Amino acid sequence: MKTLRKGNLLYAQSGGVTPVINATAGAVIERARRHPERVRRVYAAADGILGALNERLIDTTQVSDQAIAALSHTPGGAFGSCRYKLKDFRTARAEYERLITVFAVHEIRYFLYNGGGDSADTAHKIATFAAQVGYPLCCIGVPKTIDNDLPLTDVSPGFPTVAKYVAVATLEASLDVKSMASSSTKVFVLEVMGRHAGWIAAAAGVVRRRKGDPPHLILFPEIPFDEAAFLAQVKASVERCGYCTIVVSEGVKDRDGRFLSEAGSRDAFGHAQLGGVGPRIASLVKERLGYKYHWAVADYLQRSARHLASKVDVEQARAVGEAAVEYALAGQTAVMPVIKRLAGEPYRWCVESAPLGRIANREKKLPRSYISRDGFGITPACRRYLAPLIAGEDYPPYTPDGLPDYVQIKGRKVKPLLPPWKH
Amino acid sequence: MKTLRKGNLLYAQSGGVTPVINATAGAVIERARRHPERVRRVYAAADGILGALNERLIDTTQVSDQAIAALSHTPGGAFGSCRYKLKDFRTARAEYERLITVFAVHEIRYFLYNGGGDSADTAHKIATFAAQVGYPLCCIGVPKTIDNDLPLTDVSPGFPTVAKYVAVATLEASLDVKSMASSSTKVFVLEVMGRHAGWIAAAAGVVRRRKGDPPHLILFPEIPFDEAAFLAQVKASVERCGYCTIVVSEGVKDRDGRFLSEAGSRDAFGHAQLGGVGPRIASLVKERLGYKYHWAVADYLQRSARHLASKVDVEQARAVGEAAVEYALAGQTAVMPVIKRLAGEPYRWCVESAPLGRIANREKKLPRSYISRDGFGITPACRRYLAPLIAGEDYPPYTPDGLPDYVQIKGRKVKPLLPPWKH
Repeated sequence: MKTLRKGNLLYAQSGGVTPVINATAGAVIERARRHPERVRRVYAAADGILGALNERLIDTTQVSDQAIAALSHTPGGAFGSCRYKLKDFRTARAEYERLITVFAVHEIRYFLYNGGGDSADTAHKIATFAAQVGYPLCCIGVPKTIDNDLPLTDVSPGFPTVAKYVAVATLEASLDVKSMASSSTKVFVLEVMGRHAGWIAAAAGVVRRRKGDPPHLILFPEIPFDEAAFLAQVKASVERCGYCTIVVSEGVKDRDGRFLSEAGSRDAFGHAQLGGVGPRIASLVKERLGYKYHWAVADYLQRSARHLASKVDVEQARAVGEAAVEYALAGQTAVMPVIKRLAGEPYRWCVESAPLGRIANREKKLPRSYISRDGFGITPACRRYLAPLIAGEDYPPYTPDGLPDYVQIKGRKVKPLLPPWKH
Repeated sequence: MKTLRKGNLLYAQSGGVTPVINATAGAVIERARRHPERVRRVYAAADGILGALNERLIDTTQVSDQAIAALSHTPGGAFGSCRYKLKDFRTARAEYERLITVFAVHEIRYFLYNGGGDSADTAHKIATFAAQVGYPLCCIGVPKTIDNDLPLTDVSPGFPTVAKYVAVATLEASLDVKSMASSSTKVFVLEVMGRHAGWIAAAAGVVRRRKGDPPHLILFPEIPFDEAAFLAQVKASVERCGYCTIVVSEGVKDRDGRFLSEAGSRDAFGHAQLGGVGPRIASLVKERLGYKYHWAVADYLQRSARHLASKVDVEQARAVGEAAVEYALAGQTAVMPVIKRLAGEPYRWCVESAPLGRIANREKKLPRSYISRDGFGITPACRRYLAPLIAGEDYPPYTPDGLPDYVQIKGRKVKPLLPPWKH
């Protein structure tokens, strides 16, 4: 156990941001402010771990309580994020030494690293290295990822809001295409995120309450793309329902494991493929079945759509932030607060501590039991898992001119005390 | 003036649907129900004017008041729509005769046609033809189009909600890209609708309150694409702000007037079907400037996003529906209720009657005075026009499982009395 001395707390955001990662940030800062006897200052690293390495720290002390509270309804990463992954400290010891030096000169005793699987790995390595060199650090991983692929937690904060966005978008766009299908567009393709796991695509499945409801097909990364079966199902949907809504994960692969989006297509101007399995799927339908189509690629829109957050997502994002501070102050290290599902209907959950070593570098794929037998939909078990996560709405306040009142945090830059980091 | 006899009212939806066209439908039915002495039954044509031609009518009489009220928060076209355009009655008289026959056998005295410019033209022709053949019909055009290109009206119902969606999406996605721009994606491209007029693209401009705010560039259909100027501006934005958000209208054209991206197919009105200029612009940036990019194509998501409606849009969509019924019952024909702006701040408006002949086949482009001198942004005048339209939020109710509680109208099918329509 670390000694429970007074020090500064450093919070950093890592990897792709989410609609609610700032809710976690806000909760961390608020909770830390309640413990002035233990936490002198709360710093945030600018642009994630790179800010820690480059000694670019933001002091949040002077930021008003009101601005910190507004983080809970502001998407994006208020302090900046990055995808920089630390290497193993046995081969890249200098990076770890630099981090510990930065921590030491700024009296950082608590390091909270808010990210997904890669970041859990980084946090785990930092905790281990600090222990090895005898630096007193409580290093906590804080969960976040829209991909929902973290193990040991019922859900990853960020996912429920993206899931809600994808479900609502699927429902709304389907009402649109259905309205005009008798004489116009018959097939609508929505491409969603989730490169390695089909959780986000699965979320669209909750819209399908009855036979004939959209989405008529979901293409998962977990199920190799079967063109013939796919086309047969599209045709059957159009003939039966008049239209067909297809939700496709960006990570869908062919039988050889290659991403469909990278299958080497060129557009009419000879440019290499523009990314986008959505348009590819749409043009396949047009080519083989002749149906008029529309497609949408939600991209960052789904990852930043704080304007319609899942209520439970905001609550959980805040809860893991608060727990992370409590764990750190209690002297825990190399752990992550995770969400445990206590009951499904009504949904009850709590936060508990899990070891980072059991979280790092493991991807929780969508289980096969959550995907329907034909591979194109979700099962009742998957619906039971998803439904409570998207229930409830959390809206941001709006300015009089009709835009969400999102906050920009202007913390004081901490004066660097070290020579620039060379790497 | 028509004789004010009792009869049935036929309502039809036309062209691309909007997030609030059903609010107009609901208001029409509610208002007509208040006049049982004049309106025996309210019919809706299934799938727009094709339903009238094919004698596929839906009787809304038995639909509950509650279901009709729910139309006000349900996107899509509840009765179906189509893009079928009637030809001139001097060359295609049979279609008009068929329509009048259908009206006659179903005792339709009031015809409300809810659509955009093409539909105003159709309604105008039907009114003219009915007068010529002496059929007593009050034919009212009811405005709707997300493109906002109808003349004589301050705004077209549907546009403000799409404008709000585009503005919020631009703000949210920009917060996302900005968070990671220091080491990852630097350029984000959002493709929005607006085939010939840049109103929807312009809506993103309200997000830019201060220098440096997104969007850093808007590409309008009204401004020929200047690749060199565009690339210079993208580079300047990345160097100055760290990132660059680009909003591109699907209708942007090159100096020769060709769409930058054409999907090759054409819709029933002979318009080119667009889509995909977003990815093209993104790859141009990558190719010439080397910046990592992301792109989104909102497509139907923007046109159906009733989950975040503009409050004034819902109010105006209802108001034109109510006015249309009142005009029809007052014996007016060949007119359209339009929105008149009485004041800007605070926004005050009323509904007034405008002749269809002055609306049909005229497109209201974004005025040059609304586009900034460099062609990549909006002016203060444009902001003053747009801001009141997106102010205020109107949310739909949600079901306990987290989805908007959208209604499906199940009216009784009216028994056809005529032989099938042959054309």
